Order: sequence, then structure tokens, then C-alpha cells
Amino acid sequence: MTGILYGVGVGPGDPKLLTLQAVEVLQRVSVIAVPDTDGEKTAMKIVKDYIKGKEIMYCPMPMSRDLEFVASKHQESCEMLERELIAGKDIAFITLGDPTIYSTYMYIHKMMIEKGYSTKIIPGITSFCAAAAALNTSLCDRGDVLHIIPASYPDAEKQLMLDGSKVLMKSGKKLGEVKETLKRLDLYKNSQMVECCSMENEKIYRNLDQVSDDSSYFSIIIVKDK
Amino acid sequence: MTGILYGVGVGPGDPKLLTLQAVEVLQRVSVIAVPDTDGEKTAMKIVKDYIKGKEIMYCPMPMSRDLEFVASKHQESCEMLERELIAGKDIAFITLGDPTIYSTYMYIHKMMIEKGYSTKIIPGITSFCAAAAALNTSLCDRGDVLHIIPASYPDAEKQLMLDGSKVLMKSGKKLGEVKETLKRLDLYKNSQMVECCSMENEKIYRNLDQVSDDSSYFSIIIVKDK
Repeated sequence: MTGILYGVGVGPGDPKLLTLQAVEVLQRVSVIAVPDTDGEKTAMKIVKDYIKGKEIMYCPMPMSRDLEFVASKHQESCEMLERELIAGKDIAFITLGDPTIYSTYMYIHKMMIEKGYSTKIIPGITSFCAAAAALNTSLCDRGDVLHIIPASYPDAEKQLMLDGSKVLMKSGKKLGEVKETLKRLDLYKNSQMVECCSMENEKIYRNLDQVSDDSSYFSIIIVKDK
Repeated sequence: MTGILYGVGVGPGDPKLLTLQAVEVLQRVSVIAVPDTDGEKTAMKIVKDYIKGKEIMYCPMPMSRDLEFVASKHQESCEMLERELIAGKDIAFITLGDPTIYSTYMYIHKMMIEKGYSTKIIPGITSFCAAAAALNTSLCDRGDVLHIIPASYPDAEKQLMLDGSKVLMKSGKKLGEVKETLKRLDLYKNSQMVECCSMENEKIYRNLDQVSDDSSYFSIIIVKDK
């Protein structure tokens, strides 16, 4: 019997934000797969109490704009996973937040579906829901539209001009620029930020004045509608 | 000591999608509050294994466009909650999905903050993340923007014309109209639907042809970017 590949969302940082289903899958499988990137090793900290004694597989998943290089590494990761699945082992591939929201894991997931393997997604708490909870506020009410925007893409300014509430994902790398854009669009005073949400070093910014331009990669800005 | 009011996201339907933190809070508090609407009673089914013997409080939270009437009922709910908090009891107010995403509970939450009570939000799995998981697909990748759109508001068509992936929330009531709009915008063949996601009667529609115009209130349509 070929194994099943689970893409398991482990939430934003606090192990208590794991779902019961995630814990069940983590405890049941024999292999835990994780990207070999620095950022994603945070995922290992979240699940550490549930994976003792299990085989850990570090999959090459570089962050790079060289798409050919990235694809070849993803292919390599797939081959590692395939060997285990063919040996009948179930695998939990852990990924921060929710797998369906900007997760590089999904490239692997789709490749494995194409290769004919059984796959299943286990949802996780998104960083933006946890950030709104940390700010003790809602993201959207009644008829509001909510726009989830990757902050480091050139399109971000256009998206910020839309009606509705906005979440800027992973603002860390371009924070100076993002702050300038928010000022220009008169959205600065409606903006709050959470850095490293639900992690030990979580920081909450009720306004962006105290935010330094070299904040963590794990920074979520929430812009409420005017 | 005055009690604490927890707004607890219980996820979309499957009790296994509760977080460890939600279970911990449900087990610790002495009062469980829930809206007295039919739809929200689903929330009670999700948590039933964790609230045995606890005091249940049904709060009036009518869905109506008569905002004055709604506000007076919310005020009534607040007064019920206040009596328990003043008596030193902690309360878990359960709400489907995540409290920060279109939850009517947040009106109560904000009123209780204004009245000076201690409040805390416990994040939950959103219906749209669970729906994407059920479809075994991602919602957004790399530089995609994701727009979360309440389907029953007049603005929906304009929002569907934006670049990026879209989630139409609670499409049930206006499904015939929504289908027509998606056809007109040439988005129909990029659309999939999940009805009653993660509940016992979950139905997955890979295309909208089989969808009946009187589908459940709990219907999520996912429209992938072209």
C-alpha cells in the first residue's frame, strides 16, 4: 500500500493553535517532512511535542526568482517523498499557517497529485486571523471585502487603493517602502502591525511609528477601511 | 474578580478542526454563550464533547436589516454576559469559523471592550481555508492577491472583476444570481463550490452546473484567477 502525503497547516507559531486534526495526523504518520529553509524551521518548533522519534526529512525548497532552479529542487523534494510513500509510509509535510494561503508546499502538493499519489490538506490557523486576534479586532464585518495582499510584489500599491479592509502579508522585507505607500494613500493611521504573531517574540504595533524598517519576515499589517 | 469574555472560533464544522487552545478555553470556562439563531446552533454541535455540564446562555442576535432592532438585541446580549462576568465567571462565546472574519459576535465583543471588560479572541479555521482543503487546491500562490467577498452584497460583481483569486462567502441565498454573474464575467469555468464544508453533509462541486439555486447558507465558491 502506497502512503498518503498530508500537507499539514501548523498555524502561525503558538503550538496551541494546532488543530486536533493536525495533532492526530502528526502523531499517526511515520515521516515528518519540512522545507530546509531557515524560516520554515519555525514549523518544527511548533510540532516538536508530537513528533518524537519520527523520521524527519528536510526537503530542498529554495526561495529564489530563478524559477528553473526552484523547479529542479522541488522535483528533488518530490523524489524524496516518493521513495517513502512507495515504501508504504505516510508523510506529514508541515507548513506554517494554512497550506492553501501562499504556501510553497503547494507546488510539491500539486506535483505529487500529478504523479498520482494520494494527498490531503489539513487546514491551519492563518497568520492574519491570529494577527487580528492579537490586535483584539475584526478583519471584516457585514458587507466589507477583505483583500489579502503579498506586500513584496510590485502590485501592492494598486491593491491598497481598493475599497475594503486589507492584510499585507510578509511586509518585513519592504517595510520602509510599505510605510511610505500607506502614508501616500492616507491609510497610515488606519494601519496596525503584528510581528512574529503568536510566537514567543510577538510584538504588537497599534500604529506604525514604532516599527523599524528591518522588521521580521513574519510581519502582518492590517489596514482597516476608512 | 470579574470574568473574561473569550470569543472562540470553532472552525467550519468538523470538531477535529478545533484548535488545542479552543478546547482548553471551552473546558476551563463555566459559561458557554451562543447566538440563538438556527445557523449558529451548528456551533453547539462542534463543541458538544467539551462543554458537558456547563451553563449555556443563548444570546439574541437576530439577522435583520433593521439596525436599530439588531442593536437593541445586541445590548440585551451584552447585559446577559455582563451579569455572568460580574459574578466572576469566564465565558466562551462560540462562533463558527474565525471570529475576525464576518462574525456577528464581534459587535458584542466591541461593545464589551467599550464597557471595560477583559476580552480575548481565540482564532479558528476559516470556512474558506477548509473549503480549499476539501477541493485539494490552493487559494493563492506567490504574488496572487486573494479577495474575500460577501456574496450577498450588491458590490459583489465589481469585486469579482478584480485581478486575483476570489472567495465568495455565504453564496447560498443568492446562488442563481451569483452563477449568472460568474458566467457574464467569464469566470464560471474557474469556479468551484463547497457546501457545508467539513460538516457531515459536505458536498463538493468541481463545477457549478450541478449546484442547485437553493443551496445551503454555508456555501463557499472559490474562483481561481484566469
